Amino acid sequence: MKYPNGQKRAVRVNKTKAERQRNFSNRGMTLEEDINQTNLYYLAHQVCVVHKKPTPVQIVKVDYPKRSAAVIKEGYFKQPSTTDYNGVYRGRYIDFEAKETNNKTSFPLNNFHNHQIEHMKAVEQHGGIAFVIIRFAAHDQTFLFTAMKLFPLWERQFNNKGRKSISYQEIVEEGIEIPKGYPAIIDYIKVIDQVFF
Amino acid sequence: MKYPNGQKRAVRVNKTKAERQRNFSNRGMTLEEDINQTNLYYLAHQVCVVHKKPTPVQIVKVDYPKRSAAVIKEGYFKQPSTTDYNGVYRGRYIDFEAKETNNKTSFPLNNFHNHQIEHMKAVEQHGGIAFVIIRFAAHDQTFLFTAMKLFPLWERQFNNKGRKSISYQEIVEEGIEIPKGYPAIIDYIKVIDQVFF
Repeated sequence: MKYPNGQKRAVRVNKTKAERQRNFSNRGMTLEEDINQTNLYYLAHQVCVVHKKPTPVQIVKVDYPKRSAAVIKEGYFKQPSTTDYNGVYRGRYIDFEAKETNNKTSFPLNNFHNHQIEHMKAVEQHGGIAFVIIRFAAHDQTFLFTAMKLFPLWERQFNNKGRKSISYQEIVEEGIEIPKGYPAIIDYIKVIDQVFF
Repeated sequence: MKYPNGQKRAVRVNKTKAERQRNFSNRGMTLEEDINQTNLYYLAHQVCVVHKKPTPVQIVKVDYPKRSAAVIKEGYFKQPSTTDYNGVYRGRYIDFEAKETNNKTSFPLNNFHNHQIEHMKAVEQHGGIAFVIIRFAAHDQTFLFTAMKLFPLWERQFNNKGRKSISYQEIVEEGIEIPKGYPAIIDYIKVIDQVFF
């Protein structure tokens, strides 16, 4: 019964144009929800086995009430030391991070952490398939961008006055748009077939 | 300052013989600690990239105190839907679960959940390398047991009066003991080289 107090409405009013468009075109699903649904579909149809890693939590205090489950009473979010998604496709190890932006012209590099980049470098070094999935919500476009192409753009920001983002144009030119399917499938495996096999 | 109230002492007195032996032979490290240390060693020496997945937590309530980090005030442990460890070795996907027992003669199958077995089956199906690491603390022995050998023993328990465990003898015969190194390295990659490549 949240509607009468206006909370839901307030939330709706505060949404950006990009979010409203997304709502319309894509039932308001976040990129994470889309990818989780895609992975469930892939698993059920024996395409690949990819799962999202749980959010890392530093657990400080746990209560053990009688006759019920343990309750975490104090915990903190930890910064993940790897990317969020990994799994197996055609015997190969695949590993990726997924981020969306409401920005129309560029994707800010602070969406990634340095140790995630280091992790993807290690994955590449060991023959794994590493990439990022980037969604421009305002354009309703989702791209696969290989880690190999990301690394030099990541390094660029540390140069003298280096830009702290990847332009939309660079992503269009160097990334590959991921085809959308039904239901809410972003079919990244199709792109992997094209790029890595 | 926990020593004066005797708490630490009480804990020490309550340890089993197996745990005391392990303390002596292996500095009291759990299997999980050993594997984490092994994985750090492997990562630093560019052997492979394997991480433990975070413990999945259902977060119910979060406080956002001013000027400090978000605090989880209510959360619950969820059952993991996959195994705990995965990563990449020589381009291949590897995936495993690790469990230890104080039992001397058998390893209880209820150390695994059905969906973990299903997950390992899916990994096998997609060409990944799946296995379990089983430690008999009382014997100070740690074994690699392939998922392919585990599956029929898992199924056996559902037969009429099927045994709900794997005998120590079966594990000695069908598993491969993992060599121990320094510092606290259980060198499972050596066994993978032998079995899967």
